[in-house]
Amino acid sequence: MKNITDLQAQYNAYLSNNQFTGSPTNLYEPMNYIMSLGGKRIRPLLSMIGNQLFNGQLNHGLEIGHIMEVFHNFSLVHDDIMDKADLRRGNETVHIKWNMPTAILSGDNMLIETFRMLNLYDGPNKFSIINTYLKTATEVCEGQQNDMDFESKDQVEIDDYLNMIQNKTAVLLGCSLKCGALSANATETSANLLYDFAVNMGMAFQMMDDYLDSFGTSNNTGKIQGGDIIQGKKTWLYLMSQQNNIEKHQEVFDIKEPNQKINAVLSYWQSIQLDTKCLNLIQSYNAKALEDLELLKSQGVSCEILEELLVYLGNRNS
Amino acid sequence: MKNITDLQAQYNAYLSNNQFTGSPTNLYEPMNYIMSLGGKRIRPLLSMIGNQLFNGQLNHGLEIGHIMEVFHNFSLVHDDIMDKADLRRGNETVHIKWNMPTAILSGDNMLIETFRMLNLYDGPNKFSIINTYLKTATEVCEGQQNDMDFESKDQVEIDDYLNMIQNKTAVLLGCSLKCGALSANATETSANLLYDFAVNMGMAFQMMDDYLDSFGTSNNTGKIQGGDIIQGKKTWLYLMSQQNNIEKHQEVFDIKEPNQKINAVLSYWQSIQLDTKCLNLIQSYNAKALEDLELLKSQGVSCEILEELLVYLGNRNS
Repeated sequence: MKNITDLQAQYNAYLSNNQFTGSPTNLYEPMNYIMSLGGKRIRPLLSMIGNQLFNGQLNHGLEIGHIMEVFHNFSLVHDDIMDKADLRRGNETVHIKWNMPTAILSGDNMLIETFRMLNLYDGPNKFSIINTYLKTATEVCEGQQNDMDFESKDQVEIDDYLNMIQNKTAVLLGCSLKCGALSANATETSANLLYDFAVNMGMAFQMMDDYLDSFGTSNNTGKIQGGDIIQGKKTWLYLMSQQNNIEKHQEVFDIKEPNQKINAVLSYWQSIQLDTKCLNLIQSYNAKALEDLELLKSQGVSCEILEELLVYLGNRNS
Repeated sequence: MKNITDLQAQYNAYLSNNQFTGSPTNLYEPMNYIMSLGGKRIRPLLSMIGNQLFNGQLNHGLEIGHIMEVFHNFSLVHDDIMDKADLRRGNETVHIKWNMPTAILSGDNMLIETFRMLNLYDGPNKFSIINTYLKTATEVCEGQQNDMDFESKDQVEIDDYLNMIQNKTAVLLGCSLKCGALSANATETSANLLYDFAVNMGMAFQMMDDYLDSFGTSNNTGKIQGGDIIQGKKTWLYLMSQQNNIEKHQEVFDIKEPNQKINAVLSYWQSIQLDTKCLNLIQSYNAKALEDLELLKSQGVSCEILEELLVYLGNRNS
C-alpha cells in the first residue's frame, strides 16, 4: 500500500490527464479552474485507499475518487454562490471570476459529468456504487438546505445540527471510502463499516473546524480568530451556549465592539466548559471511528493507512 | 395508439402519483411546485409516443418521459435565475417564491433525481438511454452558456445561433422521442430517425416562437408584441437584419420610443422580406421532419401520431 502523499500525487497526476474539454470555453474553463485549486484531495484519497485495502485495480479507485472530487467541487461552486463567498482557497470563486450564471451552469455540467463517468465505469459493484453515490448526493443537497434554513431559525436542536453537518460534509467522505472499497469487490458489510469510519472521521474533522475557529490560534489558521462568533454563525458551540443560558448568551452576542464581543463570548463559553465539551465530542467521534477500524481488523482488513489518515486529519491545533 | 390528449392525461396522472418526497420541505416543495405549473408536457408525450410506436410497455415510456420532464423543469428553475425571470407560466419563479439559494439547490436535486430514476429503470436499452440522455444534458448546458455568451457579443454567426437553439431546446425533444423508442426496444436506426424528426420539429417550433414574437398578433400570445425587439434580443431575425445592412439595422434599433422602434424595425424587416425568409426556414425544418417520417414509414413504422403532433405544435398563428 502506498502512503498518503504518494496517493495524493497519483490522484493529481490522474486529474491533470483528465481535464474537462468542450465548447464553449466559458462553460468548461470554470470546471477545470475549480478543480485546479487544490486542497488535500481527501475524497479521492479515501476512494483509492478503499480500493487498495481490498486489492482492487487502482484505475477503478482513481475513477471513483475522481467522481467524488468532481461532485465535491460542483458543490463548492454552487455553495459559494449561495454563501456569497468571494474567495475559495485564496483564489476568486467561480461566480466572481466569471459570473453567477456561468457558475450555476458549470456546476450543473460538473454534476452531469459525474454521472457520465459513473455510467462509463465498468469495474465491480457498479449498481451499488451508483446507488450509494446518488443517496449521498441528495443528502448533501438536504444538508446544505438545512444549513440555510437553520440560519433563519431562532432555535435549532443540537441533534438536527449534527445531522446537518453529517449530511453536508461527512457522508461524502463515507461514500468516497465505501465506493472505493466496492470498486475492489469488498463485501457490503466491510464497505459499510468503512462508510461509518469515514463519517465519524468527517464529523470529528468538521467539529474541530468549529472548535479551532473559536479556540484556535489565528496565526496558523490564516482565518480571523472568532470569525464564526462575529458572524453569529450557528455552530455547535453557539447552539450549546444558547441552550445553556439564553439570557447570558444574548448578552455576550449583543456586544458591538468585535474584540470585546469575542472575549466576552469565549470567557462565557470557558466558564461553562464548552471548550472541553467540544473536545470531548470530537474525541467521541474519533473513538467511534477507531471502533469501526477494530471491527474491520477483526475481518482481516489491515487498517494502518486509515489510522494514519485519522492522525493526518486530526493533527492540527489551529 | 392513444391520441395526444389521452397521453397527456396519462402523464399528468403519473406525475401526481410520483411527487417528490423528502426533508427539508424547502428543498422538496419547490421541486413539486415547478413540476405542477403544467405546460403541454411535450417531452413525456414524445417518450410515450416513441414507446408506443414500437409496442413497448407503457410504464417504461412513462418512466423515461418523466425523467425528461424533470430534467426540463430543472433547466427552467436554473435558467429563470440566470435570466432574472420573475414569472413562469403566469406564476412566480422558484427563486422569487422562495429564494435564489433554494432555487439552485432544488434544481440540483432534480438533476440528481433524474439519475436516480435512470438508475432504477430496468427496461430495454438502459445503457444507450443513459448515454443519449447524458449527451443531451450536456448539450443543453452548452446551449444555455452559448446563449448567454452571444448576448454580450457584437456579432454572432447565423449557424452558431441555430446550433445554440438546437442545443438549448431541440435536442431534448429528440432525446425524449428517441429514448422512448429505445425503451420499447426500437433499433438504433429507427431511434435515430425519430431523434432527427423531433429535433427538426423542435427547430421549427422555436423559430416560430421568434417569428410570432415580432410578426404575430399580441392579443393571442399574451406577450407584448415586439418584446424581443424592445429587448434587443439576438434572435435569428435580429442577426439576419444586422448582417443584411448594419447601418440601417443600427438606425432602427437606436430609436428610443418603443412603438416607433417596433414599427421601424418591422417595416425594415418586411422591406428585406425577413418575415417570408423566416417562414421559409420554418418550412424547411418541417419538410425535413416530414422526410424523416417518410424514412420511418419505409421501415414499417406507422407515423400518424407524429404527423398529428407536428400539426398540433405548428398550429398557431400567434
